Amino acid sequence: MRSARARSTPTPQGIPRPEGQIVAEAFDAVDIIRTKRDRGALSTEQIDWLIDAYTRGYVEDPQMAALAMAILLNGMERREIHDLTMAMIASGERMDFSSLDAPTVDKHSTGGVGDKITLPLMPLVAAFGAAVPQLSGRGLGHTGGTLDKLESIPGWRAELTNDEMLEQLRTVGGVVCAAGTGLAPADKRLYALRDITGTVEAIPLIASSIMSKKIAEGTGALVLDVKFGSGAFMQEFERARELALTMVELGRDAGVETRALLTTMDVPLGLAIGNANEVRESVEVLAGGGPADVVELTVALAREMLDAVGKGDADVEAALADGRAMDVWRRFVVAQGGDPDAPLPVARETHTVVAEADGVLARQEALPFGIAAWRLGAGRARASDPVVHAAGIDLHVKPGDAVRKGDPLWTISADDATRIPRALEALEGAWELAAPGTAVPVPPIVRERIA
Amino acid sequence: MRSARARSTPTPQGIPRPEGQIVAEAFDAVDIIRTKRDRGALSTEQIDWLIDAYTRGYVEDPQMAALAMAILLNGMERREIHDLTMAMIASGERMDFSSLDAPTVDKHSTGGVGDKITLPLMPLVAAFGAAVPQLSGRGLGHTGGTLDKLESIPGWRAELTNDEMLEQLRTVGGVVCAAGTGLAPADKRLYALRDITGTVEAIPLIASSIMSKKIAEGTGALVLDVKFGSGAFMQEFERARELALTMVELGRDAGVETRALLTTMDVPLGLAIGNANEVRESVEVLAGGGPADVVELTVALAREMLDAVGKGDADVEAALADGRAMDVWRRFVVAQGGDPDAPLPVARETHTVVAEADGVLARQEALPFGIAAWRLGAGRARASDPVVHAAGIDLHVKPGDAVRKGDPLWTISADDATRIPRALEALEGAWELAAPGTAVPVPPIVRERIA
Repeated sequence: MRSARARSTPTPQGIPRPEGQIVAEAFDAVDIIRTKRDRGALSTEQIDWLIDAYTRGYVEDPQMAALAMAILLNGMERREIHDLTMAMIASGERMDFSSLDAPTVDKHSTGGVGDKITLPLMPLVAAFGAAVPQLSGRGLGHTGGTLDKLESIPGWRAELTNDEMLEQLRTVGGVVCAAGTGLAPADKRLYALRDITGTVEAIPLIASSIMSKKIAEGTGALVLDVKFGSGAFMQEFERARELALTMVELGRDAGVETRALLTTMDVPLGLAIGNANEVRESVEVLAGGGPADVVELTVALAREMLDAVGKGDADVEAALADGRAMDVWRRFVVAQGGDPDAPLPVARETHTVVAEADGVLARQEALPFGIAAWRLGAGRARASDPVVHAAGIDLHVKPGDAVRKGDPLWTISADDATRIPRALEALEGAWELAAPGTAVPVPPIVRERIA
Repeated sequence: MRSARARSTPTPQGIPRPEGQIVAEAFDAVDIIRTKRDRGALSTEQIDWLIDAYTRGYVEDPQMAALAMAILLNGMERREIHDLTMAMIASGERMDFSSLDAPTVDKHSTGGVGDKITLPLMPLVAAFGAAVPQLSGRGLGHTGGTLDKLESIPGWRAELTNDEMLEQLRTVGGVVCAAGTGLAPADKRLYALRDITGTVEAIPLIASSIMSKKIAEGTGALVLDVKFGSGAFMQEFERARELALTMVELGRDAGVETRALLTTMDVPLGLAIGNANEVRESVEVLAGGGPADVVELTVALAREMLDAVGKGDADVEAALADGRAMDVWRRFVVAQGGDPDAPLPVARETHTVVAEADGVLARQEALPFGIAAWRLGAGRARASDPVVHAAGIDLHVKPGDAVRKGDPLWTISADDATRIPRALEALEGAWELAAPGTAVPVPPIVRERIA
């Protein structure tokens, strides 16, 4: 009787769960959804079954969507998030770098406008003998993708086999390549579902999505760049901090030495937003120059990554100044088929916005600048769209900079002049010139370290 | 700029909503989901668009599932529930009984085990000159369906055209027939979705589902039989009361004179659970006999329905005693092709459970008895399954009745002997014999009236 009751909950039209149809299944998706809906915790066995059944198609998208909303509103315990992450990892393959002599360390950023940090960071860290297996994605929307940026380099290719990847980690020390579809495939399907159902923002789901891929990738150490601010996915600092803490816990529970930096994303990072121009800016940093904020964040993340693999005494700035990081960069580009000396693509159409009065740039909002670059062709609206590598925005000033009437503020570039008006429209209201002499505070990039 | 910000919310992979793809649509499903997720109220325009877009297939099932969960957890205001109900009505056709001379009044029950009340009730109310347009459903699961019960009668048919229905309301005064698929089609799709996503229990969704069909049906007055107790969909009295109040408000806001009775559903209603046996019991009530609880509820609902159409002084019990209700019943069965004198089907296999000791029946739980009848073949697991009209359970005793060792407790019937053990299994622990002389309180059927 007990079991008949438990499996047969009355409904308005009185439908007991169809017991006869699920003899081969250990759990019932509706029971699992109800448990979370009613603020219960899901067992390890329920979570394992759920993700496996979702991967097999037995649990359907609407069921997962309802559960995702219940998770967003009712939360998950640390143990549940760990179980969810491990179940997503178990849905696919795991990589193994244990045959390498060098320690492995990776970085993940939650995404921001002008975030090209992987490009100078990977060679910088590899210059100290750590192996950096950076599996990256293509951009969808205003934040751009690391692979899209690198594909501006003539000949460079993102697709490597696992063997090629291992070999390059041995010979060059670093790789940036496309993540195969074999890592955490359940996450891929769940992410697409969350995107259309208003459930992207659930911290347990974000954390398990990111960490399942990074743990499956097999890195020994991981540094997370978790962004907050108006141009970040997590706009509020406290929410970003909660996400960072959750991910650090998840990584450590899975045996990955994990740290996080909480970094500001109110203003575009650096002076270049796009693809080819971001590569150009990255090469400047590797040559010992580049915008102060890009250098600041690259150095902070490199120190954290090296500290995580027992190389906390590395003189990171020296490796930028003396060309050691640049050497790794050039070998990396060549190893993946690119020509580090080839000219990067240049846009056919440009338009420069100039200051209409003397003043100080008081505001420059990352999100609308990212959207403008996206509208220029630097990003894609659909996963199958190509990107225009030469399209984007080059900033000539950053908040706090004084300008005179007629000075250039930023130059926008596209291959098609018709894209320019819509980009300018995105920038309306996104920046502000204050009276000359106004003090504009510029906060440090890194607000908190979680280690 | 404002509008660009509003439409482009950053996500972890930085996907602005695809503005270019939704030019023809007034709203975005993700915005609507987020509004309810964040405890906001949806506007009338948002709700109208949502239900229309869902009917058109533009809003997808996973999106509706996530929204349903957000509604379940965060609720809806009275105005939103009204708008949702009206939008569901607008998704289909509306019926019109205004050409009838008689006032129209309908009854809806939230469902219970042994609930055959429509069968004696419709003729009883029609006997006083009210027109009763009872659109009913088939059963799915343990509560059974009114149409399945009536189809036990040889020749009786559930499908009527709208014209046939109107004509029968004029000549007989009552009709029980299948609701066409044209009434509130959005509700049909949403109900199926809620069933697999753990979102059936949301009061705004239950109330709008039931009331959209009843308002679209065009009845002038409506009495709701809202059940509570272990065998009811809403087990807790307070939740059932909230549902009843919500539906009464909805009906009145739409101009339908609506009342509700809150009735107990811990024990099967009457002595028959099944199809043909429930018809038999109903005919007993129409003949002036029948089990006390069935008579009590039939009379209470009939009084309420007649009061709702200005016939509060009708002597309902007299119409059962003197055969007026039975006359309507016979004319109703004949009008829909049935033979009121034809023998009802009888099961091939029966098994009687007997008392193993002297005692008093202290407990007889509706839900497991309903499941047992369902397993015997009286109900269906899939909408396409047939029901076995002769299958079911006949109770010989009810709680409070004294029994002697060897007395029959209930007889279970099926066409196939192999079904009997699983039915008996469902009944294990579902009933209890107390020591002889134990006082077993039997609560009144109607606990509260909302009028």
